[in-house]
Amino acid sequence: MASGLQCPDKHTSMNVEAVLHMKSGLGESSYAQNSSHQKKSTETLRSLVMDSATLVYEALRPESFTVADLGCASGTNALGVVEAIVRGVGEACRGRGPSSSSPPPEFSVLLNDLASNDFNTVFARAPEVAGRLKADAGAVVFLSGVPGSFYGRLFLCRSVHLVCSFNSLHWLSQVPAGLRDETNKPLNKGKMFISSTSSPAVPAAYLRQFQKDFNLFLRSRGAEVVSGGRMVLSMLCRETEDYTDVKMTLLWDLLSESLAALVSQVSCMMPFRLLSVVSSCRLLVATDRSDPCVRKQNGSLGQEVRWCGGAGTARAGCGGRLRRPVLRAERTGDRGGGEQGGLLQPGLRADVRRQPEQRRRR
Amino acid sequence: MASGLQCPDKHTSMNVEAVLHMKSGLGESSYAQNSSHQKKSTETLRSLVMDSATLVYEALRPESFTVADLGCASGTNALGVVEAIVRGVGEACRGRGPSSSSPPPEFSVLLNDLASNDFNTVFARAPEVAGRLKADAGAVVFLSGVPGSFYGRLFLCRSVHLVCSFNSLHWLSQVPAGLRDETNKPLNKGKMFISSTSSPAVPAAYLRQFQKDFNLFLRSRGAEVVSGGRMVLSMLCRETEDYTDVKMTLLWDLLSESLAALVSQVSCMMPFRLLSVVSSCRLLVATDRSDPCVRKQNGSLGQEVRWCGGAGTARAGCGGRLRRPVLRAERTGDRGGGEQGGLLQPGLRADVRRQPEQRRRR
Repeated sequence: MASGLQCPDKHTSMNVEAVLHMKSGLGESSYAQNSSHQKKSTETLRSLVMDSATLVYEALRPESFTVADLGCASGTNALGVVEAIVRGVGEACRGRGPSSSSPPPEFSVLLNDLASNDFNTVFARAPEVAGRLKADAGAVVFLSGVPGSFYGRLFLCRSVHLVCSFNSLHWLSQVPAGLRDETNKPLNKGKMFISSTSSPAVPAAYLRQFQKDFNLFLRSRGAEVVSGGRMVLSMLCRETEDYTDVKMTLLWDLLSESLAALVSQVSCMMPFRLLSVVSSCRLLVATDRSDPCVRKQNGSLGQEVRWCGGAGTARAGCGGRLRRPVLRAERTGDRGGGEQGGLLQPGLRADVRRQPEQRRRR
Repeated sequence: MASGLQCPDKHTSMNVEAVLHMKSGLGESSYAQNSSHQKKSTETLRSLVMDSATLVYEALRPESFTVADLGCASGTNALGVVEAIVRGVGEACRGRGPSSSSPPPEFSVLLNDLASNDFNTVFARAPEVAGRLKADAGAVVFLSGVPGSFYGRLFLCRSVHLVCSFNSLHWLSQVPAGLRDETNKPLNKGKMFISSTSSPAVPAAYLRQFQKDFNLFLRSRGAEVVSGGRMVLSMLCRETEDYTDVKMTLLWDLLSESLAALVSQVSCMMPFRLLSVVSSCRLLVATDRSDPCVRKQNGSLGQEVRWCGGAGTARAGCGGRLRRPVLRAERTGDRGGGEQGGLLQPGLRADVRRQPEQRRRR
């Protein structure tokens, strides 16, 4: 879970950011017990994350090393990534041999999600993880939780060396504006996603929202990441050009029908419109430079975006073939101004990779 | 709640730090709904905290200002202190007049308590508080939760400008060692506090534990606080010299009897020994330089400790008159060495004040 949703349309405005979250706790139906798919996905990126962390450390050699995980949710996946990063940097310190080895830096690990996320469950494992890293790798690790939407500032200026975000950036900050006509009638009535019956205005509205959100994400991180710092981002995407490919929408069709059946039994159980953006995870995330969104980001933020990975794909449970591109970005310097406390123009150079082919069919 | 308790004695060892916490949530019996006494106590220190924050800011003029609240618990008291600090520094920035006013720094607020604390309840109010401070004071505030015992390192080296801790430092890190005789029989059998029936070894054991804990507390903060940073600490203390003054022990007598009655109905409901240290809040905290503990700290850590407040006292609900001294400490420089990631010898100059007289009888 990465960010809250708000429906900006008349009569349906609601700050979902304050209430929406992954299922808390450790029970049978909790996110912690039902996030093995995300775990596997993150594990395939482990070496890439370790490489990025090591590169930043080698380049900057900071006394302390700060890592941020955006959209940590309430499971254990985030702490697994933390362990990989700490061990990777620790090995880099020891790798120079006894004569030139250096002590590892102190690590600050900032675990972010919405304020409604179940941080208590994350923190319950924190002492164990910190203790293990101290015992095994001699690393001093300080864990903290940072509540808030990553579509905005979260950390102090120039304070983070490495930003990671896995399976989160396909969540938009809110249901897009523009999903009602001039008479305030819903354009996508009866659907919670971009379907074959949606008017062209619907995918256009989602695209605008993604552009706005991702722009703000980059500007925020641009202010927070130190010069020479890096980002590793992964997100779900569609592989086909067709927004309404049934392979992409089958899951949402089934979910939509189930929710409709529930609502017919319990009136106003859930605001449908608020769930619409779940479809954005496949429909609107930039996948390559032919995507209008990526071109827009290129133009406005001066990023260099290129594919440099293989043609790996993952097969999703719904039968669709999903791309899961990885965005690696390096902050190359302070090119922008901006007042203190405001948002700075980022100098981010992005490097988009497709995820390495996954060996296991899910 | 400040730290966990561990019983080091044979057959009763248990990591209470992992499970003991203030009552979570917002229900009728929660800490959040039953901490008005602590709130009033903290509010009387508001101006002192604001003064300290302003002094640090004026002296250092940092681009970002980091505040740590140790033992924040799950109520709203901690966020009230945060607001006071941010507004105080903001006023200091504006106070120079339009020609010389400066923008306020970015604020990082680190809310600490044990990992078992209910951070979810604290975070639920975080967006509201940050939003209000942004709107009212133009301040950019980043809140985060830091799980862990303050009897050890919590933050990166030289990263904190102001440390606060209210009503927490009377909690020891564990039940003291030495509460059993050579045949492993309890010395304080049947009591959960230092009572008139306790042998002299019992208060001596608590004193040793306090000395050990507070020494570690100061060493840890000494590594974390920037040169020129400050601490404001308040804690409950006894006013009389007599450890067993009935005014001091009445509350624990009643609590002990209630717990004994419960345990007689439900066997092994609660490990008695683990609760023993609650008595330490009045029996072992250093109150003036005649106290052996303060003298010990003076000797080993080079602090200057002096009384500079009035003779104010507060009347407690149990009928006892309690001192609530305030310890203000300023880090005067890096005098110690120590390996990176380890504990540095602190250069803390402490300034102990009694709390200003409270006007309202509780």
